[in-house]
Amino acid sequence: MAENIVDEFNAYRSRMNDRILADNNKLVKRIFNLDTNAYMPGALDVRTKELLGLVASAVLRCDDCVKYHLEQCHKAGLSGEEVTEALGIATLVGGTIVVPHLRRAYEFWDALEEKTS
Amino acid sequence: MAENIVDEFNAYRSRMNDRILADNNKLVKRIFNLDTNAYMPGALDVRTKELLGLVASAVLRCDDCVKYHLEQCHKAGLSGEEVTEALGIATLVGGTIVVPHLRRAYEFWDALEEKTS
Amino acid sequence: MAENIVDEFNAYRSRMNDRILADNNKLVKRIFNLDTNAYMPGALDVRTKELLGLVASAVLRCDDCVKYHLEQCHKAGLSGEEVTEALGIATLVGGTIVVPHLRRAYEFWDALEEKTS
Amino acid sequence: MAENIVDEFNAYRSRMNDRILADNNKLVKRIFNLDTNAYMPGALDVRTKELLGLVASAVLRCDDCVKYHLEQCHKAGLSGEEVTEALGIATLVGGTIVVPHLRRAYEFWDALEEKTS
Amino acid sequence: MAENIVDEFNAYRSRMNDRILADNNKLVKRIFNLDTNAYMPGALDVRTKELLGLVASAVLRCDDCVKYHLEQCHKAGLSGEEVTEALGIATLVGGTIVVPHLRRAYEFWDALEEKTS
Amino acid sequence: MAENIVDEFNAYRSRMNDRILADNNKLVKRIFNLDTNAYMPGALDVRTKELLGLVASAVLRCDDCVKYHLEQCHKAGLSGEEVTEALGIATLVGGTIVVPHLRRAYEFWDALEEKTS
Repeated sequence: MAENIVDEFNAYRSRMNDRILADNNKLVKRIFNLDTNAYMPGALDVRTKELLGLVASAVLRCDDCVKYHLEQCHKAGLSGEEVTEALGIATLVGGTIVVPHLRRAYEFWDALEEKTS
Repeated sequence: MAENIVDEFNAYRSRMNDRILADNNKLVKRIFNLDTNAYMPGALDVRTKELLGLVASAVLRCDDCVKYHLEQCHKAGLSGEEVTEALGIATLVGGTIVVPHLRRAYEFWDALEEKTS
Repeated sequence: MAENIVDEFNAYRSRMNDRILADNNKLVKRIFNLDTNAYMPGALDVRTKELLGLVASAVLRCDDCVKYHLEQCHKAGLSGEEVTEALGIATLVGGTIVVPHLRRAYEFWDALEEKTS
Repeated sequence: MAENIVDEFNAYRSRMNDRILADNNKLVKRIFNLDTNAYMPGALDVRTKELLGLVASAVLRCDDCVKYHLEQCHKAGLSGEEVTEALGIATLVGGTIVVPHLRRAYEFWDALEEKTS
Repeated sequence: MAENIVDEFNAYRSRMNDRILADNNKLVKRIFNLDTNAYMPGALDVRTKELLGLVASAVLRCDDCVKYHLEQCHKAGLSGEEVTEALGIATLVGGTIVVPHLRRAYEFWDALEEKTS
Repeated sequence: MAENIVDEFNAYRSRMNDRILADNNKLVKRIFNLDTNAYMPGALDVRTKELLGLVASAVLRCDDCVKYHLEQCHKAGLSGEEVTEALGIATLVGGTIVVPHLRRAYEFWDALEEKTS
C-alpha cells in the first residue's frame, strides 16, 4: 500500500504535466523548462540542490513539491538522516505550521524506501 | 467523471456556506457580503475582476478559491487561452510552488468545459 | 459520520507523530516538546493561548493545525460563539482566502460537538 | 527618541488612512469599517481580541500591523508579560522567520512603555 | 518631494538589476527575461496583465513589486479609479494585512501622478 | 559605505537579541537556543545547512534572515557562485516576488565581500 502513494502521486503529476504542456502557453512551458535545468549540477551538486528544493518546498508548505523533491533526493542517494535533518531546519525556520507537512513527508519518504527495498 | 469534481466542489461549498451563514457571526456575514459585491462591474468589468480574483487565489495557492474563480471566469465567457495566460502570470510571480495548483486548475477548467459542452 | 473526521484526523496525527518521534531527530523532537509547553498556563490562560494557536493556524491557512486547535479549544471549554468570533478575526486579517478553511473549520467543530453530545 | 517611532508610525498611518478614505473606494471603506468593529467587545473581550490581532499580524509578518496591535494591547492594559507570551506563541507557530519581527516588536513595545512612563 | 520616492525606487532597482545581470547566473537571467515577456500583449492586453501583476504583488505583500506594477499601470494609461479598484480586490482577498501596503501603494501612485502632472 | 550595511545590521540585531533574551520568556529563549544548534554540523555539514537556511529565508522573503544567513555562508567559506546559485533556485521556487529581496541580497553580499577584502 505504501507503494501506492508514490505511484499515485507520479501518475497524476505526469498526466497533468502532459496536459499543461499540450497547451500552447509559452510562459508556463518556459517555467517548466527552467525547473528542469535549475537542479542540474553547477557550482552546487545535485544533492545539495535537491535539498534546497526540498527545504524551499517545506517552508512554503507545498505537499506535492515536497513529495517531488523527496523522490529526487531519494534518487540522488541522500540518506534518510540527511533528508530529515534538512526537514528539521525547515520546521525550525517555518514553524510548527510545517509539522502537518512533516507528517506527510515522513509518510512519503517511508513509501519511497519501501518501494525500493 | 470530469463533471463530478465541479459538482462535488459546489455542493460542499454551498452546504458549508449555508452552515456558516446560519451562524450569528456578523463579521463573517459582512465579509461574505463584501465578497459578492467586490466582483460586480465598476471601474473594471466583471471579466477583469474575475481574472484578478483568479490570479490572487493562485499566487496565494488556495485551490478552492482558484476553482471558484475558474467557474466565475467560465461563466463570464473568458476563453481557456485568456484564463491560462493569467495563470501563467500567477506561476511566474508566485514561482514553481504554484505548479501543483496549476495542475489542479487545468483539471478543473477541463471539467468545466466538458460539463457545458 | 461526523464523528469520523475527528477520529480519522487524530488517528493519522498520532500515528505519524509517533513515527517522527521514533526517528533520532533532536531538532524536531525539541520543537515538538516546545509545542507542548507553549500552550500551558502562564501569564495567559489556556483558553486564550488556544485561541491564539487557532487564529495563527487559520491565517496561515493550515487545516490540520486549525483542527488540532479546535479540538484543544473544545477541550478547554470554549463556546462555539467564542471560537467562531476568533475565526472571524482570522478571516478579516487573513482575507477571503481564509474562507475555504473556515468551511472546513466549521465542519470539524460541528463534528466535535456531535461527538460529545 | 524611543517616543519617536510610535509617533512617526501613527502620523504616517493617520495621514495615509485619511488619504485612502478620501478616495471613493466603497470596498476599501467597508473593509476599514469592519476592521474597527471586529475588535469591539463581543463573545470575547477586547484584550483577547487584540492579542488575536497581534498574533495574526506576527505570524503573517506584518510589522505595521504588529505595531498597531501592540499599541491597542497597551491601551487595553495588557502587561508586557502577556504580550510577549503571545508573541512567543507566534514565533513558535510561525518559525524563526518571525524573529526579526520580534526584534522590532520589542523595540516598539519599549517605546510605548517609555512614552507613557 | 513626491517625485523622489519614484526616482529613488527606480534608481535602486536599475542599479541592482544591472548588478544581478552582470553576474553569470543563467537561471536568474532567464527568469528576468521571462518577466519582461510575460507582460507583453497576448490573449490578454497589457492593461489587464499589469493589473494582474499588481494584484498578485499586493496579496503577496511585496511593496517593491507593487511599486513596479503601479508604474507600469500608470504608463499603460490605467486610471486611478481602475487601479484602486484592483487594489480593493487585493485587500479583500488578502485581508487587512494588506492595508499597510495599500497605504504605501496610494502614496506611490500619488507620486506618479504628481511627477507627470 | 558598503561596510556600513553589514555593521548596521549586526549592531541592531545584537542589541535587540540581547533585549529579548533579557526578558524572562522561556519559549523564545529556547527557540533562540534551537536556532543556534540547528546549523551545527550533523548528517549535513555547516555549508549545506547555511545554504538551506538561506534558501528558506529567501523564499519566505525575510530580508533580515537572508542577511544573517549570507553572513554565515560567507564565514563558512561558500563562494559567491555557490550562494547566487542557491538564490537562483529560491527565485525559481518562490517566483519573481523574490526578486526585490534578491537585489538586497546581492547588495549585502557585495558589502560582505568588500568588508573582508
